[in-house]
Amino acid sequence: MALTQARTMPGVLELLPMEQVALQGMLDTIRRNYERFGFLPIETPAIEFADVLLTKSGGETERQVYFVQSTGTLEKAGRPELALRFDLTVPLARYVAEHEHALSFPFRRYQMQRVYRGERAQRGRFREFYQCDIDVLGKDTLSVRYDAEIPAVIYAVFSALQVGPFTIQLNHRKLIRGFYESLGIADGEQQTRVLREVDKLDKRGAEAVRTTLAGVDFGLNTEIIDRIMAFVALRSTSLQDAYAQLDALAGDNASLHQGREELRQVLDLLKAQGVPESHFALNFSIARGLDYYTGIVYETTLDEHPEIGSVCSGGRYENLAGNYTKSHLPGVGISIGLTRLFWQLREAGLLASSESSVKALVTLLDESDLPHYLQLAAHLRGAGIATEVVMEPGKLGKQFRYANRAGIRFVLVLGGDELAKGVVTVKDMRKNEQFEVPRADLVQTLRVELEQAEVMNAVFAPTEIQSDRNVS
Amino acid sequence: MALTQARTMPGVLELLPMEQVALQGMLDTIRRNYERFGFLPIETPAIEFADVLLTKSGGETERQVYFVQSTGTLEKAGRPELALRFDLTVPLARYVAEHEHALSFPFRRYQMQRVYRGERAQRGRFREFYQCDIDVLGKDTLSVRYDAEIPAVIYAVFSALQVGPFTIQLNHRKLIRGFYESLGIADGEQQTRVLREVDKLDKRGAEAVRTTLAGVDFGLNTEIIDRIMAFVALRSTSLQDAYAQLDALAGDNASLHQGREELRQVLDLLKAQGVPESHFALNFSIARGLDYYTGIVYETTLDEHPEIGSVCSGGRYENLAGNYTKSHLPGVGISIGLTRLFWQLREAGLLASSESSVKALVTLLDESDLPHYLQLAAHLRGAGIATEVVMEPGKLGKQFRYANRAGIRFVLVLGGDELAKGVVTVKDMRKNEQFEVPRADLVQTLRVELEQAEVMNAVFAPTEIQSDRNVS
Repeated sequence: MALTQARTMPGVLELLPMEQVALQGMLDTIRRNYERFGFLPIETPAIEFADVLLTKSGGETERQVYFVQSTGTLEKAGRPELALRFDLTVPLARYVAEHEHALSFPFRRYQMQRVYRGERAQRGRFREFYQCDIDVLGKDTLSVRYDAEIPAVIYAVFSALQVGPFTIQLNHRKLIRGFYESLGIADGEQQTRVLREVDKLDKRGAEAVRTTLAGVDFGLNTEIIDRIMAFVALRSTSLQDAYAQLDALAGDNASLHQGREELRQVLDLLKAQGVPESHFALNFSIARGLDYYTGIVYETTLDEHPEIGSVCSGGRYENLAGNYTKSHLPGVGISIGLTRLFWQLREAGLLASSESSVKALVTLLDESDLPHYLQLAAHLRGAGIATEVVMEPGKLGKQFRYANRAGIRFVLVLGGDELAKGVVTVKDMRKNEQFEVPRADLVQTLRVELEQAEVMNAVFAPTEIQSDRNVS
Repeated sequence: MALTQARTMPGVLELLPMEQVALQGMLDTIRRNYERFGFLPIETPAIEFADVLLTKSGGETERQVYFVQSTGTLEKAGRPELALRFDLTVPLARYVAEHEHALSFPFRRYQMQRVYRGERAQRGRFREFYQCDIDVLGKDTLSVRYDAEIPAVIYAVFSALQVGPFTIQLNHRKLIRGFYESLGIADGEQQTRVLREVDKLDKRGAEAVRTTLAGVDFGLNTEIIDRIMAFVALRSTSLQDAYAQLDALAGDNASLHQGREELRQVLDLLKAQGVPESHFALNFSIARGLDYYTGIVYETTLDEHPEIGSVCSGGRYENLAGNYTKSHLPGVGISIGLTRLFWQLREAGLLASSESSVKALVTLLDESDLPHYLQLAAHLRGAGIATEVVMEPGKLGKQFRYANRAGIRFVLVLGGDELAKGVVTVKDMRKNEQFEVPRADLVQTLRVELEQAEVMNAVFAPTEIQSDRNVS
C-alpha cells in the first residue's frame, strides 16, 4: 500500500513528549497564578460564526482568518459561515455579551487556549498558538485599582516561570495624548502618525526618525522633536524616580493630568502589593494597539533577552463588547503568547533541562515476580508518585538506560533478596546514588526527594511570600 | 451602530465559569491519574493536512470532517488542503510515524484535546468536544500485560472522578471470532453481519433479533441462535465467576483459545494491581469498532446510570500507523469523551455542587485601608490560596452576597479593630460560622479547612491507596 507522508502543516510547533512536559509545566504555572489572583476559567469553542468573529476587524485580521466548512457546505458559493478564532479577546466579548445576565461584574476571567492565524509561514511565527489571557471587566465603570492588580499578576507569573530577571513596562494612553496635545499636536490622526513614526526608532534609528519628523510630512521644529525624543527615551529607574518623572512632566492639560494621576495610583498600589520596584518601570515609548487601548498599557521584557521583545502585553480599554451589546463594558487585561515564548526560550537555551513527569521506573527482573512489581507501582501511584513498570523482559542495564534517556529519576529494583528483606533498592539517577530503603519508608523517602527538587526548581518563585514579611 | 447577535454555533457546550471550574477539575483529575501511570503528554495541532487525516477513513468520517481554508485559498476550486482533527487516534498515528526515531517504545502517551465533527446537531451530540486518550504503542510487538494496565488506569480515573459505582466491561475480539467459528460461522463477513444484528438487541429486543437470525438473510438454526443469545447475555459476577465462565466456554479453536488465555492473564494482573473485582466483569456482548480492534476490548458503564452508555471505551489494535510508516506498531488504548460525559453528569444531576476556584474574598471597608487589604491578599496568594479583593466601595452586605453567589468560601473582614488587634475576622460561608483569627495563624487555619474539604470531596478517590494494604 502506498504510504502517505506523515507531516504537519508549516507554522505549527509540535513538541516531543519531554518538551510537552516542559510546556505543560508552564501552562500549569500560569494557570495556578491566574487562579491565585481570583480569576475564573472560561473556554470558548475554536469555531465561531464568521460574522460574529469579524464584526469589527476587517483588513489584516480578516486576511488571516481560517474559514471552516463541513463537507456538506463545500459546494456552496460565498464566504463560509464559520471560522476559527484568531485571538481570545473577540470570543471574550461575544461570551460576555451572550452570558451577560449570568455573570457577576467585575468579571474576572482567565482563558488559556489555542488561536489560529493564517499567516505567511516564517521562523518564529505560528499559525496555531497558545494565548493565556486575563481580563477584568466592569459594568459601566471599572476602578483604576484593577490596573494595578494586573502587574502584580504578571510579577507572580513570570517569577514562578523562572525565566530570569524581567521588567514590567508601564505607560498610559491618556498621558501620551496629553503630552502630544501640549506640544500642539492635538489632532488624533496626526498624533497616530507621529506615534507610528516614533515606534520605528529601534528599526530606523534616531537620526532617520528625526529627519522624517522634520520633513514635509510632519514639519515639526527641532525643539518639539527634541522633546518627543526625550519623552520616548524615558525609563524610570526606581519607584521614587518614577514618581519624580511623572512630577517633572511638562504640560498640564486634562488628558495628561488624568494619565499621570492614574499612573501614580498604580505605582502606590504596586508597592502595597509587594511588587519589587526592580520589576517595573515607566517607559513612555510604549504605545500598543492605538485604536484599542485607552488607559494604562503594559509590556514585559526579559532583562537579559531584550531581543525577545515583549512576552506579556495588554492594557485598559474603554468598551469590550460594543459590537454585541449596548452595555458599556470597560476592562483591563493582558495576554501571554505562550507558544512563541516557549519557542524563544528554547531557542535561547533558557528552558530548564527536562525531567520527565514520570518519577519512578519499576524494573522487571523475574517474570514470575510481576505481580509484586505491579503492587509496588500501585502503592507508589496511590501516593501520587507517577510510576511506570517495565512489562517486557530485558537486560537490567537496558532498563536503566531507558530510564536515563527518558528522564525518569528513580529506578526501583525489587529482586528476590529485596522481597525477602522487605526492602527496595533505589537508584537516584539525578544524584547517581543507590540505596536500600524499607518498603514501608519508600513513599516517604521518594516524596522528600521530589519535594526538595520542587523547592530547588521554585527558588525564584515564592517571592510573593517574601514580600509578605513586610505585612503588618 | 447595528449590533451583531452574540451566539455560538449549534452543537457546542460553552460553560459558565462555575461549570468550567467543575470541568477543569475533571480534566485535572484525569490528567493526574494518567500521569501517575507513567503516560507522557503530547498535543497535536487541531489543523492537519486533509490528505493525512483522511487516508483510511472515507464514508461517515469524511462526511463529518470540517475543512479549513485561509482567506487566500477561498477562491480555489477543489477540496481544501486542511481539515480539523475528528479524533486523537489518527493524529497519534501521524505523530508516531513522523517522530518515530525520537520516541522510546513502548511509547505511553496521553492526549487531552478537543476534536471536531460536523455532525447533524442534536441533543447530547457535540461538534466540538474533549477527548482524553491514553495509548501504549509497541514496536513490532506489545505484551498483553499492557492490556491489563489499561483497566487499572480506568479504575483509578473513575474512582477519583467520583461518579458513583462503575463497571469496566471486558471482552476479546479473538474470543468472539473463535466462538462464531466454533458455531460454523467462519466467514469474516458473515460474522460481522451477525455481530451487527446482535448489537441491536437493546434496541430491537431479543425476539426481533432471533427472527432475523432465523430468517432468509442468515438461516441459522434454533440451537445456534440459542448459543449466540446465551453468549452475548454473559456477564461475570466475580473474579472467580469470570475464570469459570472462560473455562466453561465450549469450542476450542486456536482463536478462541488465544482470546481466553489473554483474558485470563488480564484477570490475573488486575488482581495483582488491586483493582477490586466489583469493578470489572466479562461481557461477551461488547464488540466495538469491528474493523479496528483485534484483541481485548473495553467499555465502562456507570452502574446506577446505564442509560448513559459507555463512558470510556477502547481496546487492542494490530497496527496503528500502517498508512504512514512501514513499522509495525501494535497498541492498546482508551478514550474518554469528556464533554459528553460532563453534559450527561450534569443532566443526571451528578455534578458535585460547585465551589469556586476562588477561596477567599477580602472585603473593602475603608478605602484608606486598601493597601492593607492588598497586603493581606498577597499574603494568602503567596501561600497558594486563591484570593479576590473587593476593589470598589459598596455595602458590606452586598460584598457578602457577592461571595455567596460566586461560591467563594471565606470572606475576610479587616476593619480598624482587626488591624489594631492584629487579627482577621473570617466568615466561613460553607459552615456559616464566623470567627476571629490572629493574622499570623490565618494561612494555616484556612489551609486546614480547605484540605479537609478536599479530603471530604475525595472520599471515594484514594481507593488505590486502600488496595495497597494488601501489598506484601
